[in-house]
This record gives sequence, structure tokens and C-alpha cells, in this order.
Amino acid sequence: MGYCLQCGTKTRIEVPKGDNRERAVCPNCHYIHYENPKIICGSLVVSGDKILLCKRAIEPRYGYWTLPAGFMELDETLDQGAARETVEEAQALVINQKLYCIYNLPYLGQVYMLFRGELDGGYGAGDESLECGLYREDQIPWDELAFRSIRRTIEHYYADRKTGHFGLHVETLSRKFED
Amino acid sequence: MGYCLQCGTKTRIEVPKGDNRERAVCPNCHYIHYENPKIICGSLVVSGDKILLCKRAIEPRYGYWTLPAGFMELDETLDQGAARETVEEAQALVINQKLYCIYNLPYLGQVYMLFRGELDGGYGAGDESLECGLYREDQIPWDELAFRSIRRTIEHYYADRKTGHFGLHVETLSRKFED
Repeated sequence: MGYCLQCGTKTRIEVPKGDNRERAVCPNCHYIHYENPKIICGSLVVSGDKILLCKRAIEPRYGYWTLPAGFMELDETLDQGAARETVEEAQALVINQKLYCIYNLPYLGQVYMLFRGELDGGYGAGDESLECGLYREDQIPWDELAFRSIRRTIEHYYADRKTGHFGLHVETLSRKFED
Repeated sequence: MGYCLQCGTKTRIEVPKGDNRERAVCPNCHYIHYENPKIICGSLVVSGDKILLCKRAIEPRYGYWTLPAGFMELDETLDQGAARETVEEAQALVINQKLYCIYNLPYLGQVYMLFRGELDGGYGAGDESLECGLYREDQIPWDELAFRSIRRTIEHYYADRKTGHFGLHVETLSRKFED
């Protein structure tokens, strides 16, 4: 970055008084530009023994399969964000949402918050999807999944189905294993 | 806000192509300025039947009591952020961290992620605290707690202690109840 959001002056990288990290600081109006991790919220939508997958119509990972997920917006809750993304990407309603997987991706400055829920009604390809579909475990395109967070979530789901116990999974995904 | 972070041109509020929300967009370099919720991570640090509280030396809520907590930074995980804040505000090490409370505060654009853990060693007042101390349930200054998210967490803790079951609490705190 380089210019002040408030007044347009070129910023300087410095450690503000009382802080211990470098930030972009405006020498004119003294505004401090904090950058913090972003939340990605999404849904594992279940229908019987199948889950809802979307084939991405956008970069990154165009043409690969994912769960409906995206950046959390202001003025919504985590579950509302996950449900909104499900509508936008898969034209689907998800009900009975339970927080299921949390992934730290510190090297990307992201935290994934994925909910498990049930499909209520039909589905279709939203603007960001080439197609959407319901897949059984033996039909999952494992080699064509878009992100490791998504693959981990699906792996947890089918493992947990076998035990009948769906706990909360909290994990850190480090850079070296990323797709 | 008003100026482009990338090039310093005055931004316009518009809905970018393929989006459905208004953003500050640069008419010169076309950079889109997304604003997303921020994560606040913190620690409920337990020592025997006492918990660690900090008296705030900063605004907002100067002089009121809180749990060590603050904005998650880039390049860290949720638990690392909670532990870092505990060092910074209470000069204390927290071990055996377990995710305990998640609060949506949509009207503030914040998500709280609070971990329960054990005090390892001593403590002291960090730069952002006037004093720190260990408090039993009957010593908690309920009327002088800084934030509702903090009060809820302490309430959950002492209720859960009675049952011996410490589940994950996920709640939305709406504006009308805020301190």
C-alpha cells in the first residue's frame, strides 16, 4: 500500500507509539492503517449421504471444486455469512447450521469458519460457479478440490459420519502443504 | 475513508462489477477497498478457582476490568493471538488453551474468539493495564467489567465449572444490550 485512506498523503512504515509492530502511518493526519486477518465463512451442506459441491467459475482455482465459502462481510454473523455464500454460489438454503471446522491460515492472513448444515430445497449454479452438484463419498473429485481447507473439511465429515460424532475441528494449515 | 491506498486518488462509492455491495473504488487504478470484520482473540486464564482480570489503562472503558484480549494480527493463529495478548496485557503465560467462546458482534464488525487456559507462572500489569489480579467468583467486580463479551465469558465459566462440562459457546451479541 502507499497512500493515506483519510487524506491521500503518502504513508510511512513505522512502529506507532505504544505499538510493537510496523504499520503504514500518515505523516499528515497521523491515521494508522492496521491490517488484520480476514474471516472466510462457508458451508458443508448435507443432503442424505451427499454433500453440495460447487465448481469454481472464478480465480483462484477456476474449474476446481469447492464448498460454498467466501469473505465474511460487515453487518453479518458467521452463520449468516456462511448461509449467504451458500445462496450466492449454490442458490441453496442451508438450515440447522453447526460450527464444524476452524482453520488458521496464518501465511495468508485468513481464518476459515465452516458450518455443517442441511440442504433445504433445491440448488443451482450461482454467478461464481460453473456448476453445482450433490456428491456421495465415493463420487468426490478428490484430485480436483480447490483448497486444502475444503479437502480437510470433507475428510473430517466422512470420518465423523462413520463414528456418528461431529466435534469441532480446530487446525492450523501451514504454507508448505498448501495446494 | 476517501482516498485510494494504492495511488492516492479520491475514491468513489459504487458496486463493483460482479459484486452486490457498495465499496470504495478507485476511478484511477480501479483498486477496490474491501472492509471486513475483525477478529478479537483473548484468554480466560484460570488458576485454581480464580481467573485473571486486567484493569484497562486505555480507552475504550478505561479503568474497567477485562480479560486479556485484542485484535488478531497477521502471521499468527487464533491461539497465538490470544496468548500474545495475555503476555502483553497481563505479563502472563497461558497453557492448555481450548477454544471456549465465540461472539458475533455484527454491529461493530467484530468476532470475538476466546480461549480458556491455565496460568503458567506469575503475572503483572502490562502497558495497557493499570493492574492485574486473580479473582474468585465471589470477588469478580461484575459492575465494573468493560464489555458484555467479557461478562458473558466469565458467566459461562462459573456456570460450566458447576457442571464440569466446558462446551463451546457460540452467540450473537446485538447492539441493544451493549454496555
